[in-house]
Amino acid sequence: MPSSRPEPALLRVLAGESLDPPPVWLMRQAGRYLPEYRALRAKSGSFLEFCYNPGAAAEATLQPITRFGLDAAILFSDILVVADGLGAKVEFREGEGPVLEPLTPESLGRLKIARMQKYLEPVYEAVQRVRAALDPARALIGFAGAPWTVACYLAEGMGSRDFAAAKAWMWGKPESFEALIELLTLATIEHLSRQLEAGADCVQLFDSWAGVLPSEEFRGFVVAPTREIVRGVKQRHPNARIIGFPRGAGAMLEAYAHETGVDAVGLDYAVPLEKGRALQKRLAVQGNLDPVLLQVGGAAMQGRIRAIRAAFSGKPHIFNLGHGVLPATPPEHVAALVAAVRADP
Amino acid sequence: MPSSRPEPALLRVLAGESLDPPPVWLMRQAGRYLPEYRALRAKSGSFLEFCYNPGAAAEATLQPITRFGLDAAILFSDILVVADGLGAKVEFREGEGPVLEPLTPESLGRLKIARMQKYLEPVYEAVQRVRAALDPARALIGFAGAPWTVACYLAEGMGSRDFAAAKAWMWGKPESFEALIELLTLATIEHLSRQLEAGADCVQLFDSWAGVLPSEEFRGFVVAPTREIVRGVKQRHPNARIIGFPRGAGAMLEAYAHETGVDAVGLDYAVPLEKGRALQKRLAVQGNLDPVLLQVGGAAMQGRIRAIRAAFSGKPHIFNLGHGVLPATPPEHVAALVAAVRADP
Repeated sequence: MPSSRPEPALLRVLAGESLDPPPVWLMRQAGRYLPEYRALRAKSGSFLEFCYNPGAAAEATLQPITRFGLDAAILFSDILVVADGLGAKVEFREGEGPVLEPLTPESLGRLKIARMQKYLEPVYEAVQRVRAALDPARALIGFAGAPWTVACYLAEGMGSRDFAAAKAWMWGKPESFEALIELLTLATIEHLSRQLEAGADCVQLFDSWAGVLPSEEFRGFVVAPTREIVRGVKQRHPNARIIGFPRGAGAMLEAYAHETGVDAVGLDYAVPLEKGRALQKRLAVQGNLDPVLLQVGGAAMQGRIRAIRAAFSGKPHIFNLGHGVLPATPPEHVAALVAAVRADP
Repeated sequence: MPSSRPEPALLRVLAGESLDPPPVWLMRQAGRYLPEYRALRAKSGSFLEFCYNPGAAAEATLQPITRFGLDAAILFSDILVVADGLGAKVEFREGEGPVLEPLTPESLGRLKIARMQKYLEPVYEAVQRVRAALDPARALIGFAGAPWTVACYLAEGMGSRDFAAAKAWMWGKPESFEALIELLTLATIEHLSRQLEAGADCVQLFDSWAGVLPSEEFRGFVVAPTREIVRGVKQRHPNARIIGFPRGAGAMLEAYAHETGVDAVGLDYAVPLEKGRALQKRLAVQGNLDPVLLQVGGAAMQGRIRAIRAAFSGKPHIFNLGHGVLPATPPEHVAALVAAVRADP
């Protein structure tokens, strides 16, 4: 980074500084709850075409920064672009979420990293465009889905409640499942590194389904691949900072925070504040307002924002939600959140 | 209980004894994975009509005992019969799960405990029939959904991922939400007590959505109502034993186990064995094989059964799954599980 560039607050916290007020951004801060997003989205084709349109993705990324002055932009994209780039057949149906042709041990050979490297060029171009347009004092976050979470979508073909297809593969055909996780690990290292090369200041790894594994498999398929990704990315980019978000990790959160090498751990809204506070001895924490409180707004939201700030103050903290912004969220509530996070305590 | 009746193993463990092998039963042990259940179900009308047919409900309850010789029967019923009995409009659609006309703060007055008391008579008659037919050496378990979980279904009208309607009510109209939880608490005390009066040997409280609350609300809407239910049931039935199952409680599991007064805590499959072992210092634990491992069967299942037995042996333990039996489970795997739990270690 050129020395003339002011260091974004988010990066200072990821390097171990404590800032008051803390930097603030929100998972899914770009998206359907914003009228300007809906207008932009209406002009393009499928959801994936939109993600692969560098101009549209860059504009969607910047919209919440323009409106709310958040401390960081996160690339507008999806955790399934890696699966799509590798050659899985991914489709987004309106109101239904992603639908994939389920991958099986037999069709695993269909996935190719070389294909992904070419296929995702427009994503990296979007990163470049955002970095060129974004205020240098604000950070740009790249991201990817973690291997276990992407494997769930590949095996299930869609969202799931019991993850029976993914787990049946994991337990029933362990060798090919390990091969799948290893392939996704390498693809994730590549995808995150390319975003860093294109201008992302740091990256976040989303493990949305980390919470559905028994502890032994959590170690094998969440902690171990994350550690490998952190090591692989830092080998290529020694100064890279990585935020890990193991949603629903529950009793395994400490193992994740302490054994993967991430620079910060994202806390879901169920993580008790005192537990997050204990983690701050070793690394930065990010979170963890319930997104429904952002949707509700008012005194209930204000009170919880103060409680979160108080719990994490004096140690490295990035203010965020404990899950993504909900589509029914009034944009004014986001403005009120940002003001409350930056107000004197 | 007449002194001539042998005390069922499940009740001995709930009273603090350690048994080797441990008693074994499975959540959702009666149901669609059994051909005899599908044959019985095909003869009746809607799912709720089936639950309210004492003969059919009793027969479904006894089927897995006849086939597998499990240590306990659990009444065939549903956690939403309380909501239905209170006057909410509940419907089960084939393959979709329950659909309710969503309850709002304005329509809360529609729910009446007096209505439920009459409406659920056939459920208590089913309990009587099962108790009369069941081997006295086996326990009969009654059950109910916990107030937070039932409130989620009432507010959402169906299953949900973000629980925005339930939480928006909780945070946006706290007084009427507390009134709803209090009403459900009283209804649950009544429903569990009536099952005990009809012949259930103990009861289980299912809090399926306990894991989606921030810790403060977990204390207010999971721990507090559970404590009130335990106190209320034990006031009417001083010898009653109560198993609590706060699915997904994560970091709040200890608070639940230690502060509610339950005699045993059900562990979901994500609870690390060493964490369950620590809880056994104060109460019995139940669990916690991943139901997908039961579906997969074979060496993977056998290995994990041995690990669970070893982790919990020498202290009070009830062998069970960490969630309900999946519909695709081969019945022979259940027989193999029971044999493995009862085999010499």
